[in-house]
Amino acid sequence: MLQPADPRSFLRALFDAAIGAADPARIVPVHLPAAPKGRTIVLGAGKASAAMAKATEDHWRGPLEGLVVTRYGHGVPCRHIEIVEASHPVPDERGFDAARRILELAKSAGPDDLVLCLISGGGSALLTLPAEDISLADKQAVNRALLASGADIGEMNTVRKHLSAIKGGRLAAAAHPARVVSLIISDVAGDDLSTIGSGPTVADPTTFADAAAVLARRGIEPPASIAAHLAAAVEETPKPGDARLANVTNILIASAAGSLDAAATIARDAGVTPLVLGDAIEGEAREVGKVMAGIAHSVRSHGQPLAAPAVIISGGETTVTVRGKGRGGRNTEFLAGLAIALGGAPGIWAIAGDTDGIDGSEPNAGAIVTPDTLARARAGGVDPHRALAGNDAWSIFSAAGDLVITGPTLTNVNDFRAILVL
Amino acid sequence: MLQPADPRSFLRALFDAAIGAADPARIVPVHLPAAPKGRTIVLGAGKASAAMAKATEDHWRGPLEGLVVTRYGHGVPCRHIEIVEASHPVPDERGFDAARRILELAKSAGPDDLVLCLISGGGSALLTLPAEDISLADKQAVNRALLASGADIGEMNTVRKHLSAIKGGRLAAAAHPARVVSLIISDVAGDDLSTIGSGPTVADPTTFADAAAVLARRGIEPPASIAAHLAAAVEETPKPGDARLANVTNILIASAAGSLDAAATIARDAGVTPLVLGDAIEGEAREVGKVMAGIAHSVRSHGQPLAAPAVIISGGETTVTVRGKGRGGRNTEFLAGLAIALGGAPGIWAIAGDTDGIDGSEPNAGAIVTPDTLARARAGGVDPHRALAGNDAWSIFSAAGDLVITGPTLTNVNDFRAILVL
Repeated sequence: MLQPADPRSFLRALFDAAIGAADPARIVPVHLPAAPKGRTIVLGAGKASAAMAKATEDHWRGPLEGLVVTRYGHGVPCRHIEIVEASHPVPDERGFDAARRILELAKSAGPDDLVLCLISGGGSALLTLPAEDISLADKQAVNRALLASGADIGEMNTVRKHLSAIKGGRLAAAAHPARVVSLIISDVAGDDLSTIGSGPTVADPTTFADAAAVLARRGIEPPASIAAHLAAAVEETPKPGDARLANVTNILIASAAGSLDAAATIARDAGVTPLVLGDAIEGEAREVGKVMAGIAHSVRSHGQPLAAPAVIISGGETTVTVRGKGRGGRNTEFLAGLAIALGGAPGIWAIAGDTDGIDGSEPNAGAIVTPDTLARARAGGVDPHRALAGNDAWSIFSAAGDLVITGPTLTNVNDFRAILVL
Repeated sequence: MLQPADPRSFLRALFDAAIGAADPARIVPVHLPAAPKGRTIVLGAGKASAAMAKATEDHWRGPLEGLVVTRYGHGVPCRHIEIVEASHPVPDERGFDAARRILELAKSAGPDDLVLCLISGGGSALLTLPAEDISLADKQAVNRALLASGADIGEMNTVRKHLSAIKGGRLAAAAHPARVVSLIISDVAGDDLSTIGSGPTVADPTTFADAAAVLARRGIEPPASIAAHLAAAVEETPKPGDARLANVTNILIASAAGSLDAAATIARDAGVTPLVLGDAIEGEAREVGKVMAGIAHSVRSHGQPLAAPAVIISGGETTVTVRGKGRGGRNTEFLAGLAIALGGAPGIWAIAGDTDGIDGSEPNAGAIVTPDTLARARAGGVDPHRALAGNDAWSIFSAAGDLVITGPTLTNVNDFRAILVL
């Protein structure tokens, strides 16, 4: 049994459990379907998708072929499945080309074939293929306008799916009548399958009219080609109940919620009560740190919302408003805000990191906060308040010797945070 | 039994319960000590202290005299106890004069007398009396420098108590050998009695040397009179175990934690599981709103950290960075951030308000969020995003008809927030 007597190792074990629960090598094999009579065509897109392809190859009995597109640096050598690296989050030519070929491979599948899709976060940008009558430049212009308008992810996806030849269930529909099994790693809070990678194998309840309404509501005047495309409404996305999706199975194989649960189990086994605040925590990173410090203070002073020893676990994706030129990412900003708000309070420790292994500008996954992190940073010549003001949170934890380095994990279920109160 | 079937009434009942648990008329009488052989001298300072004096008068058997200082607008007519209204948070002459007379009254107490102190939030500014060899201007200069330096409340109080003739247990020491009973309403997270109103009746473990060290650590060069005062170290604050405080009883009669518990009890009785996140939530108000929205989303999508029907309750004091010229306060900013992050999600309702009854610039205590608050605000001609950007959150809830108005409550246990997930 793991003891929290060494808080640093304890917290690191929680983070490792969270990553492990989303590790393609562990989770893909158990979800692989039976081999088909015909061909097995592996298609995929996302940051974890090359690692998912490798895990598939390592455990598949029978012939395999296929094409998976992943982010630059996230490739894994495979023997049978072609791996293409492309640009994320802004698509490039290699990504478009891969998306076109992935759609062609889906269309080539026959009734005895299996199309195995490997979808993970980032798949939306990596699987970009505008509908035939739309130019890439026009599609990008609308995307930019949507982002600037404050549109939420649901609105963004409604529009995207209706400007795409592959999103919103179109990939699965193209593979009809082949059997389609889609293994999905979610990086989206709430795990709505139609949202992850814009749901290329998931029925889409939204319509061309909905997409046009989003643009109108957000005050966006689309380029002529896009207005015409939405008005023509040719070839709607497959809706729930569409016969072309009758042979499609979507399986969520990993999610932030699953990773938080895995960490909570480790904690409980060590006699530390977990409080899981969920996978949907958002907000300015340093302010989220203050909020969590307040909860930790309450655990210590009132035993509320639960008695120590306790660990407050959460996922989701915070944001950083960049004002300075420093180094770091969401998780070190969060931790700096937390540590300053804790003010060296005894008995409170924390870890935060990006489960993909890279937190922002530097090659660390995250960092650890101890009661004396700030004192050690100051001893190392870094003023924590000044560093945070300059978005230089990385330097605090570098000076303190509290960085957490995992290397790229080749999966992604978003951020992981755990605050231990002894 | 209260049903959550009407979320608006349910949430208002929780807020009323939180305020009721800190209502002087309800909580002072049960804590009044027995009458003494000699005089009963009532002394007090803080936003709730006039209401506490009135509650004392209404239930006291025997003669009473005394003087209580409260904030302008917080006076309550009393028959035997003089009520002085003075300036807060920046002290004025009326406050100094009251503090001087309060100290004299304490000194006048004899061994058979009872000094009943009524302390509440705001007492620190209202009970300002510089030590004899310090000018008010010098004391104020140090206070301003401390605020600007980022000193925490503990550091601030260490210095304040050593520049004061009345703070840090000095008022109680002045009343020796009379019996002293101090009834305290806390507006400070964690309820450290030595912090509330700068603890005029509570032993102070900090020293003149500590105060000088704070100024040095924060890079503050004090005026000559203050440097000399700290160096001379004449008449230290009474320390724990000081014989002059042997006859002193400090009683916490209301606190944010108590009010959160009262609201949690109402919820539980209605079949709604409460999660109390504690009395220490801090951070930029709109970002705290985003964080709470994330937790509410998780309750709905994963039943984490608890299953619906649930209510997430918290206290503490958020902050607002003023960028625009709009109307509102911490609680409407919080609610606007929450409502925008919820995006009209069904089944989620919220209330937030200042338990003193006034949230910022307008005469409302707070507001309520319903799934259609933003839609109703838009229908009323207010764009929620634009309003929040201009610190004009009040206008959102005014247009929506969702303001909560209580009038001044004459008590204060800080902010109250409750988010109901059905």
